[in-house]
Amino acid sequence: MVVGIIGATGYAGAELARLLSGHSKIKKLALSSVSFEGDRIENVYPAFLGRISGKLLKAEEVIAASDVVFSALPHAVGEPFAAACIEKKIHFIDLSGDFRFGDDEAVYSEWYGKNYQFPDLHKTSIYGLPELNRNLIKDSKSKPLVIANPGCYPTGATLGIFPAIVKGLTGETPIIVNAVSGTSGGGREPSRSFHYSECADSVAPYKIASHRHAPEISRNLAAISQIAEGGSIPAPKVIFTPHLAPMNRGILSTIYIPLKEKFKKIEEIQKLYEDFYKDEPFVRVLPSGVYSAANRVRHSNFCDISVNLDIHGSTLIVVTAIDNMIKGASGQAIQNMNILFDYDERNGLEAIPMLF
Amino acid sequence: MVVGIIGATGYAGAELARLLSGHSKIKKLALSSVSFEGDRIENVYPAFLGRISGKLLKAEEVIAASDVVFSALPHAVGEPFAAACIEKKIHFIDLSGDFRFGDDEAVYSEWYGKNYQFPDLHKTSIYGLPELNRNLIKDSKSKPLVIANPGCYPTGATLGIFPAIVKGLTGETPIIVNAVSGTSGGGREPSRSFHYSECADSVAPYKIASHRHAPEISRNLAAISQIAEGGSIPAPKVIFTPHLAPMNRGILSTIYIPLKEKFKKIEEIQKLYEDFYKDEPFVRVLPSGVYSAANRVRHSNFCDISVNLDIHGSTLIVVTAIDNMIKGASGQAIQNMNILFDYDERNGLEAIPMLF
Amino acid sequence: MVVGIIGATGYAGAELARLLSGHSKIKKLALSSVSFEGDRIENVYPAFLGRISGKLLKAEEVIAASDVVFSALPHAVGEPFAAACIEKKIHFIDLSGDFRFGDDEAVYSEWYGKNYQFPDLHKTSIYGLPELNRNLIKDSKSKPLVIANPGCYPTGATLGIFPAIVKGLTGETPIIVNAVSGTSGGGREPSRSFHYSECADSVAPYKIASHRHAPEISRNLAAISQIAEGGSIPAPKVIFTPHLAPMNRGILSTIYIPLKEKFKKIEEIQKLYEDFYKDEPFVRVLPSGVYSAANRVRHSNFCDISVNLDIHGSTLIVVTAIDNMIKGASGQAIQNMNILFDYDERNGLEAIPMLF
Amino acid sequence: MVVGIIGATGYAGAELARLLSGHSKIKKLALSSVSFEGDRIENVYPAFLGRISGKLLKAEEVIAASDVVFSALPHAVGEPFAAACIEKKIHFIDLSGDFRFGDDEAVYSEWYGKNYQFPDLHKTSIYGLPELNRNLIKDSKSKPLVIANPGCYPTGATLGIFPAIVKGLTGETPIIVNAVSGTSGGGREPSRSFHYSECADSVAPYKIASHRHAPEISRNLAAISQIAEGGSIPAPKVIFTPHLAPMNRGILSTIYIPLKEKFKKIEEIQKLYEDFYKDEPFVRVLPSGVYSAANRVRHSNFCDISVNLDIHGSTLIVVTAIDNMIKGASGQAIQNMNILFDYDERNGLEAIPMLF
Repeated sequence: MVVGIIGATGYAGAELARLLSGHSKIKKLALSSVSFEGDRIENVYPAFLGRISGKLLKAEEVIAASDVVFSALPHAVGEPFAAACIEKKIHFIDLSGDFRFGDDEAVYSEWYGKNYQFPDLHKTSIYGLPELNRNLIKDSKSKPLVIANPGCYPTGATLGIFPAIVKGLTGETPIIVNAVSGTSGGGREPSRSFHYSECADSVAPYKIASHRHAPEISRNLAAISQIAEGGSIPAPKVIFTPHLAPMNRGILSTIYIPLKEKFKKIEEIQKLYEDFYKDEPFVRVLPSGVYSAANRVRHSNFCDISVNLDIHGSTLIVVTAIDNMIKGASGQAIQNMNILFDYDERNGLEAIPMLF
Repeated sequence: MVVGIIGATGYAGAELARLLSGHSKIKKLALSSVSFEGDRIENVYPAFLGRISGKLLKAEEVIAASDVVFSALPHAVGEPFAAACIEKKIHFIDLSGDFRFGDDEAVYSEWYGKNYQFPDLHKTSIYGLPELNRNLIKDSKSKPLVIANPGCYPTGATLGIFPAIVKGLTGETPIIVNAVSGTSGGGREPSRSFHYSECADSVAPYKIASHRHAPEISRNLAAISQIAEGGSIPAPKVIFTPHLAPMNRGILSTIYIPLKEKFKKIEEIQKLYEDFYKDEPFVRVLPSGVYSAANRVRHSNFCDISVNLDIHGSTLIVVTAIDNMIKGASGQAIQNMNILFDYDERNGLEAIPMLF
Repeated sequence: MVVGIIGATGYAGAELARLLSGHSKIKKLALSSVSFEGDRIENVYPAFLGRISGKLLKAEEVIAASDVVFSALPHAVGEPFAAACIEKKIHFIDLSGDFRFGDDEAVYSEWYGKNYQFPDLHKTSIYGLPELNRNLIKDSKSKPLVIANPGCYPTGATLGIFPAIVKGLTGETPIIVNAVSGTSGGGREPSRSFHYSECADSVAPYKIASHRHAPEISRNLAAISQIAEGGSIPAPKVIFTPHLAPMNRGILSTIYIPLKEKFKKIEEIQKLYEDFYKDEPFVRVLPSGVYSAANRVRHSNFCDISVNLDIHGSTLIVVTAIDNMIKGASGQAIQNMNILFDYDERNGLEAIPMLF
Repeated sequence: MVVGIIGATGYAGAELARLLSGHSKIKKLALSSVSFEGDRIENVYPAFLGRISGKLLKAEEVIAASDVVFSALPHAVGEPFAAACIEKKIHFIDLSGDFRFGDDEAVYSEWYGKNYQFPDLHKTSIYGLPELNRNLIKDSKSKPLVIANPGCYPTGATLGIFPAIVKGLTGETPIIVNAVSGTSGGGREPSRSFHYSECADSVAPYKIASHRHAPEISRNLAAISQIAEGGSIPAPKVIFTPHLAPMNRGILSTIYIPLKEKFKKIEEIQKLYEDFYKDEPFVRVLPSGVYSAANRVRHSNFCDISVNLDIHGSTLIVVTAIDNMIKGASGQAIQNMNILFDYDERNGLEAIPMLF
């Protein structure tokens, strides 16, 4: 199979190339880049020398050459390529935010400042969080699909809250998602926020009450509420605060879920979470006493979850950790590809977390 | 004036020595160390060569030589020295947790696993958060006092919540304090948690629902409630989660305060916070749009506060930043000394935050 | 094949387990640990959950169960296990310094402070730098062998100097190896030098003129001189200075090789290096203008080499980069295993360097 | 006294403002910025809130208002301001490279790609390394002077080699300066090299054999040779290799000085260095066994020097550490101002190194 990557020289695109190079079903990569068109990927990333090699083409050439296309472009520029893929009858897996809001163009427009260019595409696109929509993807994959790969923060947040909603634990008080991200989430373009001397040796919040991933998390929780107990559970509100920490990779989300009823024993909820995720290949509910940590999932596609109860027994403290570039971006995109093509969902994603 | 530091070779003790060397009223430091008794401070910390010099004595010798004593010992070993200072009629400023719970020995025993050795000392000791207890310290300083210097996390948390309680904004839903600390808070003794390869390039929580600073924060909020509006405001509950981040210094506390009533305009609360702290020499309520960041207070005695409202208008998101070793430990201790001796509260604490 | 790892809970042992889990010829790992005997590897390293699992045995049990044994023990304790393996007629690949000096017990004793326990083993052991001794290993592997896996610094230094000696470029002035290591080289045991607050945000030398890897480098250069041009080239002297930098992995060696004769054109030497290593699977001579960097080889078994000439044309400045835990330890050990068993030398070592 | 800073919003300019705020002789700062003209310094650096405040003027306004002017502009734009200051009869202390080559315009042009605009100014400018030219500055200060503040790398390199040349230890083999810098040396403008994800957790060389500080170091060594023993000592050649490490501040220079004659005892050279610098307020020759480390001088104006001998007794290994932004830039500039105005050389520069 030939796999295309549009936007291959950004961090998510390059990470896709790296991970896909270890995928057993892939014969060839076709890569595009606007900034480096005509150059070679191994010149842009000399770390790839001897392992990944290829000329950087135009996006159109990539689409023409490929059996499936990943798009790692910035927001608001990829729709025409999605349309071209659907027309060519191949799947399009999009890592931008463009297709994450389905037919809810109003929310997209409010947060991304753009309207849809191809509204029909959004009606049939699927939000590619496998733990939530695996069956939907499987059932729809006979026709060409646009998969909206989830945002990094929404992945860590949603997986931590998912069982609590389904099992009816959540109440009316807003859930708080306090998340800390590594710097690779900011991409490859230099800017003050990610200038070493400005962000090293410090931690700080950013975009409080104004980050685009907040409505995406809310939308996910609403979707979960609808599938839980026949839709009788109200969608919980969420407050989301992102922070930047001096680490290359990883998102640690500390999630405070006010419980509908007090619990005395965390063991029950621990069991509930373990059962809920027991068949998931990439979710690990950690044993009691082991906390999620960004470096425990580093370079893997895992989402680690630790489940805790506050002193009062009234709030669940769920901590999730993902590698923002893998489960939070390129790895999850490959997981979606594996589902689309009936490959082993672990193919290309077998990396064991790096200890250091 | 001769100032004594017991436990001068730990991080808090050494930081005291460094800061006190810039204090205009201090003629001499007397230093003790159990681990390095007989050696010299500049051998333990060669960075001090040519600036801070002195033989490391016994604690008793330090007390005998000093006009005021700081204790930077671990918990549960300093009470006899406090007693000796009071007997000698000099003030004792304690950086451990031993005196932070006043006459509430039950709470101390529950969290620290020890009983009081000199119960009378605890009845008259004062919790040395100047913004809360400055007048109490001023009024009591004619007799020898034990000052309980606040914990690092409680300082950042309490200062962020203080105006909200006093102004009657808090409701019944628990306040959440999600805090991230630098590594110097772990002290000088090597351990796995602070081993570079284990904590670099990662962020993780620790001691969820079980950190000793949780009851200290709760106690502070209760104390504030009692002084606010004649004690009619119920003390808010608090959920506290500490995290470790790869930075040398700093504590960033992201505090979620559910509001009793919805607010539409953050400007009102911003104004309220600004007015509340307008005379405080070390609290900076940041202008709207500027967020607290650990590196904005690095190496200073400032507590920076930024005030934000969530999307729903129902929760205040207050972010505070302190240097855990200065306002969170040694700097605040010196601030307390300055109050005790009627010195300019800024003396020795004029360092401007380091940009990088 | 069952592969044994003695000392599996140290960093090098755990890294072996991680890498070997991706090796296609390995059915099972047998792991031992003195510190955690009876416990399970996934409890010691929760990052391994769901991927690497196994009870920690005694070293003797590991030897009994295995077809080849890696030893990641500290220096001076592994000889009896080597002897047991040879007796059982299986290969023993040792990551400690014990067998790196062959029959030159005097040098070993001088630098390691111990005598050989099984002198005969040292006579037939082979120094496992594949680029130097691949054929020797291949030719000897029919009988059970002790392979002395090279030290991390000597690997980076030797590969950078190797072609210069063989091609007769070196003169009498000592070669200088100025090397900077990441912290994982210090192992898993906490100590002051690797305490986060002591080593973060700083760079410093250590063990100047007294590091055990200095005689190992010298020995390698002498061995190379003997094979070059019939042994007519005198072994260059070397000055080696190690430094610690705040990074988890990697060794960057900046090597100054005074040239026997002045060169005008770096292109000639570049070509010479490229030709020399053209068939090596893990040595990359970087194109002119691209410098070796620790993060360009991160998590791979590559040794990157960049070749430069000083302004005067009299000194070659060769910069090499390796991942100290992979090419500098566990990866190279697996490379040796692959040679011993006629496996593809890349098996288990195909990881592409991580960009960030 | 009113002190002007041209280019106050770059890192060196802001650091000047921070340090000068602690100088007892300074009444007021006048600040200029091209990028932020009209804005306020505390908006550009909110860390300064409540401590440093002021409108950002034009350079001409700053000159008009000031009794002495520091220029922290990039290279090749400051000469007209220097001329204006000299015309106004006030001293001009320049942190750029423009005046570091005196009347040797050819070298400047070769390395900086520009010609002198005001050649006369360069004839009377003085290279402001106080340890080398203190008396020259003192003797010339009655007329308005241009002081060329040394580069960061040349400061650390020159101070490490200075005594060796003067005492006749150096021979003909080139001296090697292997230096590692923190990121603040790259300034405030974001760029790929200093993008967190590109430089964190790694070490790499840059500009091998092509850094502008190489000719500056050579020039310094030549100047020293001329003053040593009547100029009979030939100027040593130097090979200089800069590296970038993931730390905010600091330059560690590991300097290899081939000795004219072999030495057996490092104690002699240690003594020689100690005596040479015994009256210098900011040079610390560390006791034997204590190595220079970037964090031992952090935030101070110290240059730490440790003196070591290689195994063969033929090469001196001198390691120097400075804070690149203080002794390597703004601190040294203030030291020069103190000499120019007969202030205590320590004024404004009394900060004790930060331990962590």
